[in-house]
Amino acid sequence: MKLQISLDLVDTKKALEMTEQIKDIIDIVEVGTPMIIREGLHPVRELKSRYKDLCVLADTKIVDGGEIESADAFMAGADIVTVLAFSQDETIKGVVKTAKKFNRKTMADMICIKDITIRAKELDQMGVDYICIHTAVDVQSTGQSPYADLAAIHPLLKNAKSALAGGVNIQSVPKFYQYNPEIVVVGGALTSQENLREAVIQMQNELK
Amino acid sequence: MKLQISLDLVDTKKALEMTEQIKDIIDIVEVGTPMIIREGLHPVRELKSRYKDLCVLADTKIVDGGEIESADAFMAGADIVTVLAFSQDETIKGVVKTAKKFNRKTMADMICIKDITIRAKELDQMGVDYICIHTAVDVQSTGQSPYADLAAIHPLLKNAKSALAGGVNIQSVPKFYQYNPEIVVVGGALTSQENLREAVIQMQNELK
Repeated sequence: MKLQISLDLVDTKKALEMTEQIKDIIDIVEVGTPMIIREGLHPVRELKSRYKDLCVLADTKIVDGGEIESADAFMAGADIVTVLAFSQDETIKGVVKTAKKFNRKTMADMICIKDITIRAKELDQMGVDYICIHTAVDVQSTGQSPYADLAAIHPLLKNAKSALAGGVNIQSVPKFYQYNPEIVVVGGALTSQENLREAVIQMQNELK
Repeated sequence: MKLQISLDLVDTKKALEMTEQIKDIIDIVEVGTPMIIREGLHPVRELKSRYKDLCVLADTKIVDGGEIESADAFMAGADIVTVLAFSQDETIKGVVKTAKKFNRKTMADMICIKDITIRAKELDQMGVDYICIHTAVDVQSTGQSPYADLAAIHPLLKNAKSALAGGVNIQSVPKFYQYNPEIVVVGGALTSQENLREAVIQMQNELK
């Protein structure tokens, strides 16, 4: 399992400072959607210019203009770009095609998808690299969690790999460990820790 | 009907130049999603600092973190913020609540919604100000258009007003004129014209 840290509520300077602390032990650094809304692709560009071997995911949550918007993110240096799973198939295919052209990767975000298994199979066939089961922040307090959905898609994927996001922390690892997602996305549970490096090391140990 | 121009594929400098040409005749200037992905909320901030009486829509297409992301856009100066209609109700309500706090407006974007009438009624009850029927750019070439859906929601809205987007141009006005949407969003059909001011004047005349 790869560990992806999502940086959501920080500015570019803080994102660079945080990345500096963990650059050798983190698998993927995500520039989260709130950061992109605030600052655009500039943090992606900054991260890649400073750390060219770092894998950076731009959480663009594309829902239209698949080719144009993903090309922008890839040109800014993003290694992985996200597209919303409920986008039209034409949009998904546009992002996949553009990712192949740039030799990068596509993650489909399953947020707000009701019939998880049907869409996961379709996305798998359309050639996305990762299918991310994702419980929205706005409903985590209602008790919703992504683990049952991960279990449901786990046996279905033939080409794509799974990813998991939405309230994941060190205590929740036993709930998904057996489904072995390729990428585990952790936000606040890491970024709120005083010792970020230590928190990342502990999480990495749990995922081994 | 109000005319909203969507600025999608330009940088902040160009957006300011274009706005300067039409600031007295356009109702709403939209900072489109591709611009926000590229540059974040900076173009919104620039437009509002130069033209404080101009109505600026930030096409943030929020799908999670409703309160935080909309607050960011409102603090940057946006008068109207968009949320995806297929977001969880909690997200929609978070954006609506935040808009009321800032005394601004919410537009729900119906892109990719299959059962238009059911969701339109729900959104109407949740207190969004505008419900935007929107055909994705990525499927416009397949012949899909937003006019039948506008007709379908037209009689249902009790509080919200309708908006229309997706391939609208001067020739398509007769297709929706009778449904009298509150906002008509036009992108390329205006921004591709050599004489932008003249194109806006012509479109405004058609909408009268």
